[in-house]
Amino acid sequence: MTDYAGEALSAEQATQMRATFEPLTHAVRDLIDAVIRSEADDNLVAAALTEIESATARLRSRQRDGHFGARRVVGGEPVAWGNAATGLRNPLAPPVVVKRERSGIASADVFLGAAYEGPPGHVHGGYCALILDHLLGEVASGPDNPRFTGTLSLRYLRATPLGVVHAEARIERIDGIKTYAVGQLSDGDGTTIQAEGVFIQPRWARG
Amino acid sequence: MTDYAGEALSAEQATQMRATFEPLTHAVRDLIDAVIRSEADDNLVAAALTEIESATARLRSRQRDGHFGARRVVGGEPVAWGNAATGLRNPLAPPVVVKRERSGIASADVFLGAAYEGPPGHVHGGYCALILDHLLGEVASGPDNPRFTGTLSLRYLRATPLGVVHAEARIERIDGIKTYAVGQLSDGDGTTIQAEGVFIQPRWARG
Repeated sequence: MTDYAGEALSAEQATQMRATFEPLTHAVRDLIDAVIRSEADDNLVAAALTEIESATARLRSRQRDGHFGARRVVGGEPVAWGNAATGLRNPLAPPVVVKRERSGIASADVFLGAAYEGPPGHVHGGYCALILDHLLGEVASGPDNPRFTGTLSLRYLRATPLGVVHAEARIERIDGIKTYAVGQLSDGDGTTIQAEGVFIQPRWARG
Repeated sequence: MTDYAGEALSAEQATQMRATFEPLTHAVRDLIDAVIRSEADDNLVAAALTEIESATARLRSRQRDGHFGARRVVGGEPVAWGNAATGLRNPLAPPVVVKRERSGIASADVFLGAAYEGPPGHVHGGYCALILDHLLGEVASGPDNPRFTGTLSLRYLRATPLGVVHAEARIERIDGIKTYAVGQLSDGDGTTIQAEGVFIQPRWARG
């Protein structure tokens, strides 16, 4: 879990890479929404398909093997830009931007549009699980203190409408290598899903 | 949850819509992978960005409001092509294709590449939750017998490597409006995550 691909990036290289790829990620998120909602005719769809395939070929003209992984940044946080919940370079990621409050609560406000649909008009319950897993895992882990999901239990009180959702998490207690975290997802009318989980310090990170 | 957008589609219209949009979805999944793994230079990325924005504009020249929802098909299964786990028109969906065996087991083999990464080289635990939530929900629901997630509990035995994962689920017991389902995710070396959940018959579907 600690493997870093390639040499460490300088802070300038990381900034440059962000400037190059972040607009691309935003553009592909917008494209995904359009693919789902489009009612364009066959000719327009065919023309769009040609452009998409051309863009992919340009991007693939030079690419890394396999997956993004994580890269070390000199003097900064490692970048894991492929991450499916938060990745700067992953158009699948909603993305979840975690805010940490002094009280120890971690929270995120995430807009979930057409691409996150499960039951008509509502967020897929599995995507709600993804957001809660990520947030509870974040609050259980310190900046240099990784914790991986051991168990996760979710109670769905009602369906979560598409739109802005608010997620919150906090540590309940710590018992040796186990950190117990709790949290919930909510919309404007209150809690829709309650979550609790146990997050485990991996063997390689134990002192 | 039963709202259908627009008029019912004929079987021919549904077939035509699939032929138009399915290649687009495949192309965008390929593009997402390229966005994450590309090491192309700034000029190539800028050219790709222009093409992506053009494709999006073409698709948006005529589009439905909001989200895909579900459309009724005359003489066929309703289509929910925006679905985040299975949607034919949703490039986020892995997609999960569920096989049902006579024994009552539902299963799916899903290839999860760079876009589904959490810990480097491994599937995001939240995406594993999404797949298990979907599969347990499917096995708990009959074709005309919707069940929505009430609770879902996951036990992560070890990290799931990127690549092909196998998911299975079956009904354990039914108690009135509650269906208890269990399942697991596995790789070539065995189970990585165990899941159990209670799936509830919605009030509007009770006899």
